[in-house]
Amino acid sequence: MSEKQIAPTVLVGKKPAMSYVLACLTGFQSGSKEIVVKARGKAISRAVDVVQIVKNRFLTNLVVKDIRLGTEQITDEQNRTVNVSTIEIVLGAS
Amino acid sequence: MSEKQIAPTVLVGKKPAMSYVLACLTGFQSGSKEIVVKARGKAISRAVDVVQIVKNRFLTNLVVKDIRLGTEQITDEQNRTVNVSTIEIVLGAS
Repeated sequence: MSEKQIAPTVLVGKKPAMSYVLACLTGFQSGSKEIVVKARGKAISRAVDVVQIVKNRFLTNLVVKDIRLGTEQITDEQNRTVNVSTIEIVLGAS
Repeated sequence: MSEKQIAPTVLVGKKPAMSYVLACLTGFQSGSKEIVVKARGKAISRAVDVVQIVKNRFLTNLVVKDIRLGTEQITDEQNRTVNVSTIEIVLGAS
């Protein structure tokens, strides 16, 4: 991308993986060159599933361009701070 | 590494994250320069937790050198083939 664009993000949560696969496909269909698949906590494994399904089954020309891991601090109902891991997977054309 | 060594692997499964954190620390303590943290399926999120805990809380000079995603085919009890996502995170000194 020569012009700096903000890549659209698909935030993976508790729905079935296919919902997020569809969101990725829609994004690429509407002209995005890159999509960032984000998740945190237990949804991280589903985010990896989503990326693998998009890449292996639908858009086989895509590659994983970057993967970033991180930690976020979240305050739970008992007002305790807990650390939650995050992942951001950048999908784009090779 | 000038001499090609095989980096030791910590395979993350269903135990608490801290068991695998300890395995990583023991590995680096005994002289390994790199450790590969692997997981598949739902354990992927725990593998990310393990890496973040090792890196942020214990060995702050470590960096994530590479992250590889993959898919494995597994045959379940009903003899059906299911696809399972995998992750390999390479931890090493910067």
